[in-house]
Amino acid sequence: MIQSTGASSPVSPGRARCMMTSNMCGCREGRYGCTAVSTERCSVSTGLRSWMQPKQEGEFLIRHARVAPPAKKCAFVLTRDGRPVKVQRTIFSECFYTMAMDELWKATGDPRYQREAVEMMDQIIYWVRVNPTGLGQPQLSGAPKVDSMAVPMMLLNLVDQLGQDDNKMSRKYAELGEWCSQQILKHLQRDGQLVLENVSKDGTEIPGCLGRQQNPGHALEAGWFLLRYAIRQRNPELKTHIIEKFMVQPFHSGWDNENGGIFYFQDADKFCPTQLEWDMKLWWPHSEAMIAFLMGYSETKDPNLLNLFCQVAEYTFERVRKLFKAKQVKFPDMKHGEWYGYLNREGKVALSFKGGPFKGCFHVPRCLYMCEELLKALLVAS
Amino acid sequence: MIQSTGASSPVSPGRARCMMTSNMCGCREGRYGCTAVSTERCSVSTGLRSWMQPKQEGEFLIRHARVAPPAKKCAFVLTRDGRPVKVQRTIFSECFYTMAMDELWKATGDPRYQREAVEMMDQIIYWVRVNPTGLGQPQLSGAPKVDSMAVPMMLLNLVDQLGQDDNKMSRKYAELGEWCSQQILKHLQRDGQLVLENVSKDGTEIPGCLGRQQNPGHALEAGWFLLRYAIRQRNPELKTHIIEKFMVQPFHSGWDNENGGIFYFQDADKFCPTQLEWDMKLWWPHSEAMIAFLMGYSETKDPNLLNLFCQVAEYTFERVRKLFKAKQVKFPDMKHGEWYGYLNREGKVALSFKGGPFKGCFHVPRCLYMCEELLKALLVAS
Repeated sequence: MIQSTGASSPVSPGRARCMMTSNMCGCREGRYGCTAVSTERCSVSTGLRSWMQPKQEGEFLIRHARVAPPAKKCAFVLTRDGRPVKVQRTIFSECFYTMAMDELWKATGDPRYQREAVEMMDQIIYWVRVNPTGLGQPQLSGAPKVDSMAVPMMLLNLVDQLGQDDNKMSRKYAELGEWCSQQILKHLQRDGQLVLENVSKDGTEIPGCLGRQQNPGHALEAGWFLLRYAIRQRNPELKTHIIEKFMVQPFHSGWDNENGGIFYFQDADKFCPTQLEWDMKLWWPHSEAMIAFLMGYSETKDPNLLNLFCQVAEYTFERVRKLFKAKQVKFPDMKHGEWYGYLNREGKVALSFKGGPFKGCFHVPRCLYMCEELLKALLVAS
Repeated sequence: MIQSTGASSPVSPGRARCMMTSNMCGCREGRYGCTAVSTERCSVSTGLRSWMQPKQEGEFLIRHARVAPPAKKCAFVLTRDGRPVKVQRTIFSECFYTMAMDELWKATGDPRYQREAVEMMDQIIYWVRVNPTGLGQPQLSGAPKVDSMAVPMMLLNLVDQLGQDDNKMSRKYAELGEWCSQQILKHLQRDGQLVLENVSKDGTEIPGCLGRQQNPGHALEAGWFLLRYAIRQRNPELKTHIIEKFMVQPFHSGWDNENGGIFYFQDADKFCPTQLEWDMKLWWPHSEAMIAFLMGYSETKDPNLLNLFCQVAEYTFERVRKLFKAKQVKFPDMKHGEWYGYLNREGKVALSFKGGPFKGCFHVPRCLYMCEELLKALLVAS
């Protein structure tokens, strides 16, 4: 595995050290529980030991995250005292459990956490590659057999996480990493012109709006996951391919030329998406785009990628405010801190809360930390 | 049961004669299946026999709606050829199956359809009042025990449907009707000042955003279901109460004084709702509001209710267009027919399709038919 030590090396997303707990969001019942790396406590880099209590967090998760231990299915939402509120029939709660346990292992050196991480990881791999029955999704004869890009993306991120600073784990999951990258690349469709969120098992476009669905921010996030993989593999052709197909192309098709910002959903045939929120501008596609373009620039020194980073950052931090001379039409709340999560098409704040059912403490700190590290490395090298 | 025969009697929603089939929406896979009374074919009133093939539709539903017969759980989405795509863990697909079967019974006189309707109805009652296990929802220890207003609303609508022109059915479900009305009235909270979508089993407000959730269009729909019940019960006090608490109050709190139109979701404490689409203007709350106020006016001759009907109708059909001199900023598509379903906060079309995953052929024809009948009756009586 390539260590993250040089100016042109990737910054480790694992070092953003986010972890889960049964936290509370705007409303009073517990949310996020074992999911979405959502916690008010996100220790960035070396800050972990100084202001977290990782052992207590770890014990809470080990005790409460699983709905019916020893079965490994985790809750999506827990109450503050650890009772399950909601369970999703996907792998994502378990993926964030794995990420948290691996971070705890790296922060504390307690091998129990690594064992927890690896056992959960192996369960996830079984669900994804062998038999998904344990997830609880009914197998319906009319349901299209669909591969969602989110699954190999999340797994590739975990391969990166678990292999960090650990050659043994890196070797253990090497084949899985290659499989994930191939699975993600399947989503590049129509002669390489666009990334589709859902494709058939054999990598072809599926009919209907599900098949035409695009999510440019998600493609950009997949882009930097793949770019890190290509860097680790020392594969310059793959790097170039990824930057063009999973970063530059999705950005140009997803950017709103009229109002600025990245659309949430799009339809490959330019039909109206069926998601009511399709034209909103969300915090996380902009966070992921900034990481993607800065990482791309760090790798290539292509000034176009730096310009794209600046374009997203300007929108995120300043641009709309300047254009419309309005008090608050961008993500960060300059008065009370944190970012708003949801702007409308024109860039005005549409939902005024900072944390909600799907906005936790994950994308913003990961973006700020990784971009800061990338920029520092660029300055040092210049 | 009071028959729908006079100018001041309620128009039967059952006579809108919508029924289900495994239809197709904008995208190519089958949707709506056994749900949402969604079909391109909605025979209004006496038109049923002339342009539908009810027997074929009925046979399709009987053959395909249930996922694993003889178990009664129905699919939410079917492919065109009848294979299940999606199953919801609620009662609503089965409610629309019941509605369809009862309409088929009334349209064809074939007692098999009535038997289907009654058997499914009794299964739904068992799930709601005795044991919900068969719905497949996991019982999680941290999940709040919540009563959603949608459940007794839907059941009360079915009590009305099955009892129409049928004294035997009317008697069979009389106690259920009273139970439903009491269950809905539980949702009037905070000293009768507002209607909350979710309350505890013992009828108190539950903590958090789930407890504070309001949906003014839904309250208005519940309002006219309850008003029809009060009319059948010859209960003038209940009528007055319902009109004030489930129609006038939700309308005034839900109306957007700045841009016009009824908000989709609100928070009882004026916090920002967590639904991304909270400030959009949807077709169905406006349809239901028009029915509610016209029915209220027909019953009371209170000119305020007629004014409220006109206010909603103006917004729906003309008002925003006039105000903003824009080409298309209201629900109906004057060029190609049908209504758009989703306007943004300012009243511009946000999603350009006419049928989608949750917009079928139900609210618009029911509203137009019922309002036309109510207006005709008022004219005859005047």
